[in-house]
Amino acid sequence: MRLRLTPREDSYYELFADSANNLVTASRLLVEIIGDDSDREALAEKMRACEHAGDERTHAIMNRLNESFITPFDREDIYRLASNLDDVMDFMEAAADLIVLYQIDHLPKEVVRQVEVLERAAELTADAMPRLRSMQHLNEYWIEINRLENQADQIYRRLLAKLFSGEFDTLTVMKMREVIEQLEAAADAFEHVANTIESIAVKES
Amino acid sequence: MRLRLTPREDSYYELFADSANNLVTASRLLVEIIGDDSDREALAEKMRACEHAGDERTHAIMNRLNESFITPFDREDIYRLASNLDDVMDFMEAAADLIVLYQIDHLPKEVVRQVEVLERAAELTADAMPRLRSMQHLNEYWIEINRLENQADQIYRRLLAKLFSGEFDTLTVMKMREVIEQLEAAADAFEHVANTIESIAVKES
Amino acid sequence: MRLRLTPREDSYYELFADSANNLVTASRLLVEIIGDDSDREALAEKMRACEHAGDERTHAIMNRLNESFITPFDREDIYRLASNLDDVMDFMEAAADLIVLYQIDHLPKEVVRQVEVLERAAELTADAMPRLRSMQHLNEYWIEINRLENQADQIYRRLLAKLFSGEFDTLTVMKMREVIEQLEAAADAFEHVANTIESIAVKES
Repeated sequence: MRLRLTPREDSYYELFADSANNLVTASRLLVEIIGDDSDREALAEKMRACEHAGDERTHAIMNRLNESFITPFDREDIYRLASNLDDVMDFMEAAADLIVLYQIDHLPKEVVRQVEVLERAAELTADAMPRLRSMQHLNEYWIEINRLENQADQIYRRLLAKLFSGEFDTLTVMKMREVIEQLEAAADAFEHVANTIESIAVKES
Repeated sequence: MRLRLTPREDSYYELFADSANNLVTASRLLVEIIGDDSDREALAEKMRACEHAGDERTHAIMNRLNESFITPFDREDIYRLASNLDDVMDFMEAAADLIVLYQIDHLPKEVVRQVEVLERAAELTADAMPRLRSMQHLNEYWIEINRLENQADQIYRRLLAKLFSGEFDTLTVMKMREVIEQLEAAADAFEHVANTIESIAVKES
Repeated sequence: MRLRLTPREDSYYELFADSANNLVTASRLLVEIIGDDSDREALAEKMRACEHAGDERTHAIMNRLNESFITPFDREDIYRLASNLDDVMDFMEAAADLIVLYQIDHLPKEVVRQVEVLERAAELTADAMPRLRSMQHLNEYWIEINRLENQADQIYRRLLAKLFSGEFDTLTVMKMREVIEQLEAAADAFEHVANTIESIAVKES
């Protein structure tokens, strides 16, 4: 049996890992939602449940912060990381809600690529969380998230160019633009998570 | 006669309370501006005056920071809170300016609800400022601002769906979208104010 | 021969100055790109090279942070300033890329004014960087950047009003809106650089 000397600190890592795993679930719901024959209403409902679960984890982290004397790294960094993870969820949930709300029948295939990048970013983030404990091997995570964010930018800009090509009617263009903008914001928000982790590592180094 | 032992610290609270009260004034100007028979030019002029008054308070806080040896909480938190309050004002002023600039005759009634949420958020923020001194009873403020921000999100998304329903011509849709986006940004900015106050309380706890 | 007692600290200032000078180069490329008879493809390619050069400087700053025991000001402020400078470049590069991608033939003359403001902001930022060392005479820099950002706001809003006047077809409006939004975001990002420098000066005072 191994003694756990710092049970309180441990649980921050667990809460962050939980939060990131929840983003993996959300990103997979997005993959399903954009599928052509999906039951979007039901999936958007699951996405809302996912967002509520995320909110609960965020509040659990905040409450623990209010009770803890000792924290594994700066209080405001814990606070910011929890907020950043929460932001990613909010953008993914917004995208799902808008797809249902606008009753968009068919999304261009490039949206599939946007969402695949989000799924990959979520997986990388979930993988990185346990490494916060040792602050080791985080470098490849940042580099890969930055690469993914550049890729997301490229996909987003090409999608906009396609939307503005004259192929779609104006209202469809406007609706799709709102959706792909939320997905792009989610990709940016994953980069903010990585930036916060990078700045924590910079401080602790 | 009661001795004031810390006159310098007192005035930060007063400047923040002033700044938040100024947001209440601005939110009420917005309520008037979106009314159908309002004198929009005159009200937008009042809004600009309101924004200038806000800028002066922000600069007063910054100048005090440069002169003070002792501050009631971390210098960068005072700085960030002042900036967050300033952001709210900027978005409200932008919304007012765009309504006049685009000569939008009639706004959908949901915009009234958007602005009512802003007014309520401004009042709650102004109420919370004096409680910064004791750091007591701020919890209900965050919870309520978060609830209002969720409500603002819902109103905003439904408004977008209405704009994209085919009911309005394209240019009207585009103009109204810019206005409601600024109002949504103001609601988000109120949440940023609440987040900053929450993170101050987390540090001081 | 003059002894350099703190070679390590010196280089942060040099890296920041390099980064800001790179923004001056980028802003001048933008001025060329929006010219009517410019070779846009070639200039956008130069802009991408400029962005890569910026990324390298950002990484050089981050690496130095990881190696340094002593830094001229707080590690997280160095981190934030590097990120802010990087953001400006990203928005300028995005604007250039979108102009080429959308094959926008002619931009309204107000876009020239938007880009001139960016060029002036870049020059002011590059001028201010060496003054970080002494923290002297930064006040006029903030004031001027804030004035420029207000001017950029005015130009941007008037440009939107022009786009929505009925003079252009819908797709052209949408494409130009994306471009001028990136330029406006670059102006905002210059203000964020100035705000970070202001908050560093507030702390060090």
